[in-house]
Amino acid sequence: MMKKILRRFRPHTRFSTKAGMSPGTLMRLEELDDDTITCYFTSYSKKHFDQTKEVKLNECTDILNTKGVGWLEVEGLSNTDALIALSEILKIHPLVIEDIQNTEHGPKFEGFEDYIFILIKSVCYDSEKKEANFNQWGFILMENLVVSFVESKEDLFSSVKKRLENPNGRMRNQGPDALLHTLLDIIVDNYFIAIEKLGDELERIEDDVLDDSDESIVREIHQYKRELVYLRRSLWPLRDVVRKMTFSDDDLLTKNTRLYWQDLQDHIIQVIDLLELYRDMISNVHDLSLSIISNRMNQVMKVLTIFATIFIPLTFIAGIYGMNFDFMPELRWKWGYFGIWGVFIAVTIGMIIYFKRKKWF
Amino acid sequence: MMKKILRRFRPHTRFSTKAGMSPGTLMRLEELDDDTITCYFTSYSKKHFDQTKEVKLNECTDILNTKGVGWLEVEGLSNTDALIALSEILKIHPLVIEDIQNTEHGPKFEGFEDYIFILIKSVCYDSEKKEANFNQWGFILMENLVVSFVESKEDLFSSVKKRLENPNGRMRNQGPDALLHTLLDIIVDNYFIAIEKLGDELERIEDDVLDDSDESIVREIHQYKRELVYLRRSLWPLRDVVRKMTFSDDDLLTKNTRLYWQDLQDHIIQVIDLLELYRDMISNVHDLSLSIISNRMNQVMKVLTIFATIFIPLTFIAGIYGMNFDFMPELRWKWGYFGIWGVFIAVTIGMIIYFKRKKWF
Amino acid sequence: MMKKILRRFRPHTRFSTKAGMSPGTLMRLEELDDDTITCYFTSYSKKHFDQTKEVKLNECTDILNTKGVGWLEVEGLSNTDALIALSEILKIHPLVIEDIQNTEHGPKFEGFEDYIFILIKSVCYDSEKKEANFNQWGFILMENLVVSFVESKEDLFSSVKKRLENPNGRMRNQGPDALLHTLLDIIVDNYFIAIEKLGDELERIEDDVLDDSDESIVREIHQYKRELVYLRRSLWPLRDVVRKMTFSDDDLLTKNTRLYWQDLQDHIIQVIDLLELYRDMISNVHDLSLSIISNRMNQVMKVLTIFATIFIPLTFIAGIYGMNFDFMPELRWKWGYFGIWGVFIAVTIGMIIYFKRKKWF
Amino acid sequence: MMKKILRRFRPHTRFSTKAGMSPGTLMRLEELDDDTITCYFTSYSKKHFDQTKEVKLNECTDILNTKGVGWLEVEGLSNTDALIALSEILKIHPLVIEDIQNTEHGPKFEGFEDYIFILIKSVCYDSEKKEANFNQWGFILMENLVVSFVESKEDLFSSVKKRLENPNGRMRNQGPDALLHTLLDIIVDNYFIAIEKLGDELERIEDDVLDDSDESIVREIHQYKRELVYLRRSLWPLRDVVRKMTFSDDDLLTKNTRLYWQDLQDHIIQVIDLLELYRDMISNVHDLSLSIISNRMNQVMKVLTIFATIFIPLTFIAGIYGMNFDFMPELRWKWGYFGIWGVFIAVTIGMIIYFKRKKWF
Amino acid sequence: MMKKILRRFRPHTRFSTKAGMSPGTLMRLEELDDDTITCYFTSYSKKHFDQTKEVKLNECTDILNTKGVGWLEVEGLSNTDALIALSEILKIHPLVIEDIQNTEHGPKFEGFEDYIFILIKSVCYDSEKKEANFNQWGFILMENLVVSFVESKEDLFSSVKKRLENPNGRMRNQGPDALLHTLLDIIVDNYFIAIEKLGDELERIEDDVLDDSDESIVREIHQYKRELVYLRRSLWPLRDVVRKMTFSDDDLLTKNTRLYWQDLQDHIIQVIDLLELYRDMISNVHDLSLSIISNRMNQVMKVLTIFATIFIPLTFIAGIYGMNFDFMPELRWKWGYFGIWGVFIAVTIGMIIYFKRKKWF
Repeated sequence: MMKKILRRFRPHTRFSTKAGMSPGTLMRLEELDDDTITCYFTSYSKKHFDQTKEVKLNECTDILNTKGVGWLEVEGLSNTDALIALSEILKIHPLVIEDIQNTEHGPKFEGFEDYIFILIKSVCYDSEKKEANFNQWGFILMENLVVSFVESKEDLFSSVKKRLENPNGRMRNQGPDALLHTLLDIIVDNYFIAIEKLGDELERIEDDVLDDSDESIVREIHQYKRELVYLRRSLWPLRDVVRKMTFSDDDLLTKNTRLYWQDLQDHIIQVIDLLELYRDMISNVHDLSLSIISNRMNQVMKVLTIFATIFIPLTFIAGIYGMNFDFMPELRWKWGYFGIWGVFIAVTIGMIIYFKRKKWF
Repeated sequence: MMKKILRRFRPHTRFSTKAGMSPGTLMRLEELDDDTITCYFTSYSKKHFDQTKEVKLNECTDILNTKGVGWLEVEGLSNTDALIALSEILKIHPLVIEDIQNTEHGPKFEGFEDYIFILIKSVCYDSEKKEANFNQWGFILMENLVVSFVESKEDLFSSVKKRLENPNGRMRNQGPDALLHTLLDIIVDNYFIAIEKLGDELERIEDDVLDDSDESIVREIHQYKRELVYLRRSLWPLRDVVRKMTFSDDDLLTKNTRLYWQDLQDHIIQVIDLLELYRDMISNVHDLSLSIISNRMNQVMKVLTIFATIFIPLTFIAGIYGMNFDFMPELRWKWGYFGIWGVFIAVTIGMIIYFKRKKWF
Repeated sequence: MMKKILRRFRPHTRFSTKAGMSPGTLMRLEELDDDTITCYFTSYSKKHFDQTKEVKLNECTDILNTKGVGWLEVEGLSNTDALIALSEILKIHPLVIEDIQNTEHGPKFEGFEDYIFILIKSVCYDSEKKEANFNQWGFILMENLVVSFVESKEDLFSSVKKRLENPNGRMRNQGPDALLHTLLDIIVDNYFIAIEKLGDELERIEDDVLDDSDESIVREIHQYKRELVYLRRSLWPLRDVVRKMTFSDDDLLTKNTRLYWQDLQDHIIQVIDLLELYRDMISNVHDLSLSIISNRMNQVMKVLTIFATIFIPLTFIAGIYGMNFDFMPELRWKWGYFGIWGVFIAVTIGMIIYFKRKKWF
Repeated sequence: MMKKILRRFRPHTRFSTKAGMSPGTLMRLEELDDDTITCYFTSYSKKHFDQTKEVKLNECTDILNTKGVGWLEVEGLSNTDALIALSEILKIHPLVIEDIQNTEHGPKFEGFEDYIFILIKSVCYDSEKKEANFNQWGFILMENLVVSFVESKEDLFSSVKKRLENPNGRMRNQGPDALLHTLLDIIVDNYFIAIEKLGDELERIEDDVLDDSDESIVREIHQYKRELVYLRRSLWPLRDVVRKMTFSDDDLLTKNTRLYWQDLQDHIIQVIDLLELYRDMISNVHDLSLSIISNRMNQVMKVLTIFATIFIPLTFIAGIYGMNFDFMPELRWKWGYFGIWGVFIAVTIGMIIYFKRKKWF
Repeated sequence: MMKKILRRFRPHTRFSTKAGMSPGTLMRLEELDDDTITCYFTSYSKKHFDQTKEVKLNECTDILNTKGVGWLEVEGLSNTDALIALSEILKIHPLVIEDIQNTEHGPKFEGFEDYIFILIKSVCYDSEKKEANFNQWGFILMENLVVSFVESKEDLFSSVKKRLENPNGRMRNQGPDALLHTLLDIIVDNYFIAIEKLGDELERIEDDVLDDSDESIVREIHQYKRELVYLRRSLWPLRDVVRKMTFSDDDLLTKNTRLYWQDLQDHIIQVIDLLELYRDMISNVHDLSLSIISNRMNQVMKVLTIFATIFIPLTFIAGIYGMNFDFMPELRWKWGYFGIWGVFIAVTIGMIIYFKRKKWF
């Protein structure tokens, strides 16, 4: 289980094979079978909308000269040569490509002269496996172009294309920064969905703890905490990234969208806030579960010990009259046996009263 | 129990149904039966006071042109179309309406060109259910108008209206910022009431812990901690909100009220301070309760074990003389049986003395 | 016990009765019997010294015109009307009076146009009850006047008056800021006394823990921690208050006293420092006490269990020869009984050697 | 084990022998056998590349006048006199040499008039011993020279030399800052390798905890935590060091490399980030392991106690009928013995049902 | 033990006797027998060196007019009158003397018009008592004079005097700031020695924990933690003090020594760093020791319980055949007794196999 999770955070490039190479050097990754890179290109303006279509790399050359706003989707990050070629066409720094390929990289915002580079992770909480799965997106915002990079295809942005098709849609009149904002907004909304599922999960765990705590709940709490750790790691730097965008005075981010960036930042803070709330809650639930398990255990041990304790003197008394002394007057008494039963019962009742009075059970 | 509590923090709009829509898009919320929005309007100046009355949306159009200070109360946030219509009348940005509808949103202060927007949660501690209940308020401060939004009716501000009726009341001479301050002050005073009830609760819990700790106290402490977590979450950002208002140089906030904002900020800091104090205290009480429970358990186990330990050698001795060896001289002695009783008593006393000396009980 | 302590921190005004009133509104407090306010007035300059005398409110009107430096002591905060009247005579903002009456308020420094307002708590550690008791002081520094407000009389400043009587005393030549500094310095020195007593207490607790830990020590540590929590709460904001005074450029604070303010700040930092040291120490002592209690418990349980374990096989062996089988050759042996004693002794010695070798006792 | 680890962090110079000497005084270190210092010198420019060769100290004098970019590697820090001599040749401050010799020193960046001084630790995680081993590097960046100091030879930079041999390599056209960046980049990449191994280790530990926790896992977790503590200690200040370099306006750091420094800083943040993630994870795993061990222990104790508890009343019943009363009617019944077996079985089944119903096993 | 330690941190002046006095008032300390103050004076310049000699207070008057650099050592802080007299000769503010006498005061740096005042604690770790002992030093740096105050004589600076005797020594050419730096450097170097001893101690404790944890190790860890708490308390503010000196633009601190102050600051950061490392380590070791003790205890209890559990059914079986029923066929069987031995052995082996399979021992 752990292996999968850590792998989610591992870059494809094992650094052990890369250390010692020149920085900015991109490697062909042997371990991946499929070297294909798939590009889709959509362009729109107030007047036209060109359907998304698959493009080849050599067709990308005139993308920069597209009319209106262009949106190039790049799927698959394993073919380093192709990405290098693309970066040369788009005039992107090779270090940017290196960051995009490093799927282990945290959220990042960097403003270059002609473009803005954003790295962000989308999240998808798998309720069954109880795992948060991450997918890293790279975005390049240029004067009239948004380029999105993602490793594995994820159908996150289909709604955007539908909205773009609508000739009266607000986005059709706006620049590429509005498109970028919409894409990021969808990613952040997906965090809310994950958070909601985590909230449901937390409720379920707390109910389980209050009803019937056993060892397995400890493991569930452990896994829950781990997912929170992962989510926090992805989200904390995100706040910074969006804050930088909100206050960036880059010409590529028009004034019109500033309020929307602020709104996005608000949403991220809200997500982080809920995450911290859940962290406090699961920590309280964890303490509670430990207390309940320990109390239950103590309860069992105490009842059993009291039970045993009652029988110990009885057994001793029975032992006394099992002795074989020649002269033991009680053994000869007619009512001795029934008397000893009376003693047994009296001792038992006496001890129960004593324990009750001491509130031991 | 948990379900209700988390629901208190849940927005009406489940994000799972909203993700992928354009930001600023407001949705009709299916799950609510009652779509009605109720508006009350009060206006006053030095000279006149117009009683609060229910107004319809189409009557709101000339609210902006009201004489003196106007106060529009909007109850019910579910009818998105109506809120949108109202926002257009009042020239409020749609993102503001979205924030107001998002009852999960934290406290917020935002200054726009023509108005100030404040989000704040009022609290009401239900001593019986031991739950803090929150109700989110949105306030818009305009040049001569305060608009308050709330989801469910709460009779918080009736005293304000009474004071406004009084023609010699201080507020009658002041602007809408004084009204806004009064409203916020009442909300903050309600935090004090909740804090006071929490203080009483804390005393009760500590007394219970010192008197008679059982498992249920652990659950009570858990719930108490949870309520503190909720309250902290609502209060911490509030401090920031009021600080921003105190130092805001917006024209809508006149100098006359500055001192009062500072006073409000002071009160919030005091509430937070008490909350932190309670947090430290409940944490100490929690530690104490664990120690006491564990000590009591240990005490029981120790006494029982000592009790059992005393009987173990006695039973062994009785067992010896229960053996059927042909030649066991003691069994033939005349005073053997009484002698063995002497041994029983001597062993018991000896062990009790030994245990006493070792301070084991 | 707790009730008293929390009450120490409770304002007289229960907010539950006050919420909904206009801010700055002062209430007559029903629950107090004695509504009297007592004022003492002292005035001095290089040349004259007017003995402290009880003044009535209507005599206070010309206090502002006193020659030299004046010191008005106000005892009793319950009579709101009288305080309001006084505030009007002295031209103090009603919010200041509200703060003074709120004995739950934390330390505060606020500079107004014509006066400086300081709120500070004096502390007195009651070694017997092991409680830190607080008394809130309000100070107003005016051009030639210091006004001190306190709820219940406390004989803290008698030494100051003696020093003022001395015509060659340094203070006789200095302004009211020197008087204020002296008063605050005495309050801070009282913190040192409380800290010293807490230090003695800490030593005693640690010695007790190392000598003879039982359940009661856990309660003592709990109480100690609680007192530290209270003291921290009073002291942390104090640091800020005095820092503000040190760096304040208010004309009322002359350059001559600046060094003394800095010295005062130093002392407060030192007190806080010691408090943090004690917090670390008591936390270590708490851990130690838990370890020692648990070790002792384990020790007892282990010895008793070993003891029981030795007798278990012996009892079994005795049980064997208590069986009534017709044919049990050992029972017929002449030395059988003595042989079985040999077995008992051998088993016992063998087990003791085994346990010793395993270092189990 | 610990001894070796702490020694890794110990400076060669025991301060106990050094205290009291003039600052800047360098001592001959007695405890090292090999006093030799080995220097290698490489020089390159666009046109030429002079193979690395061993140089003697007296040959170093004209190093500063080398053409193109020079790279002087100094191995062995024990010969203080030699280092002093070298520092005089290179005009480096003696305090710099003292810092380089102090292998306990943390990462450091300091800009001097004519040179930049950097201290940094390289790391190598030994998977077998489960130890992170550190090696401290000192770098001096001058106008046309990079000097690297290291205590023990480590074959870290062989790849750099290969790249320099290539006449078309990017570095051949760049200044000494590019060389320095390449060297630091390799060191940081080595942190990634260590982090990766730690990630594998963490997975292994978590699997072990979930499968089969015994005491040894607690020791492994302890060691893992310790290595994280060491790594954090080396890495946190590194972030600051590289941040300073990124924003340094020193002429020695050309604009061309700024982006690369930023990239390096990014990598360090990523490493720290992963380290913090691992810290949270191992802490969760530690809690989990304690819970699991304690649960397993409780499970064993509970089953054994229940087992014992079932036999206690049975033994008592057998004891009753082992008594020797003259008149015990049951003993005479024909089916008494079989009846008692029935009682034994009934009691056993009854107790098992009772325990099952109580969910005690 | 604790008493001594806290006393190390206690000022001589019990504040309980001092509160209420005018600030700056210095008291004669009754509890000290020896009121003597001892002064030594050394002066040196490039050309001359006047041997350290004991001076009397009335000889101090022309100290300020000494040629070259003067160094006045004052030993003994109890004679307040003498210190006041000295402060008047040297024109030092009485509050400075008060700070020097307050041996409880933390590190401090304060720049006055004509002099700089530094308070710093020297440390000496007593390996036998396992206690860090502190000695507070006050330094006054004047134009051509360094005054050092210390309560009890400590032979820390003898090496300095030897260096000053050397006419070619670097210090002979430098001002009093170089002397001050040398003195502080020695004090900081002494921290390294204490830290080293603590490091050895930590290694020893960890080895003990891994080898053979018993209760005493818990006490040792407790004491170790306490010493770290003390050291941290002395060191944290020291960092600030030296940082202030490094960046101070006071004329008394010449540019020549700036680099040395920075070096000193570096050393202090390194000491603090190691202290934090040790804190993390001892905390890990503490957790480990608790785990190991608890594991060992569990191990003992488990083995003993299993042992007892094996005998419980055996004793029951023996009890069965000790019953006196008239009709018990097994008792009459010829091989009954040997058969029962077979049952005993079979049950024992069966249970051992069962426990082994369950991995319970």
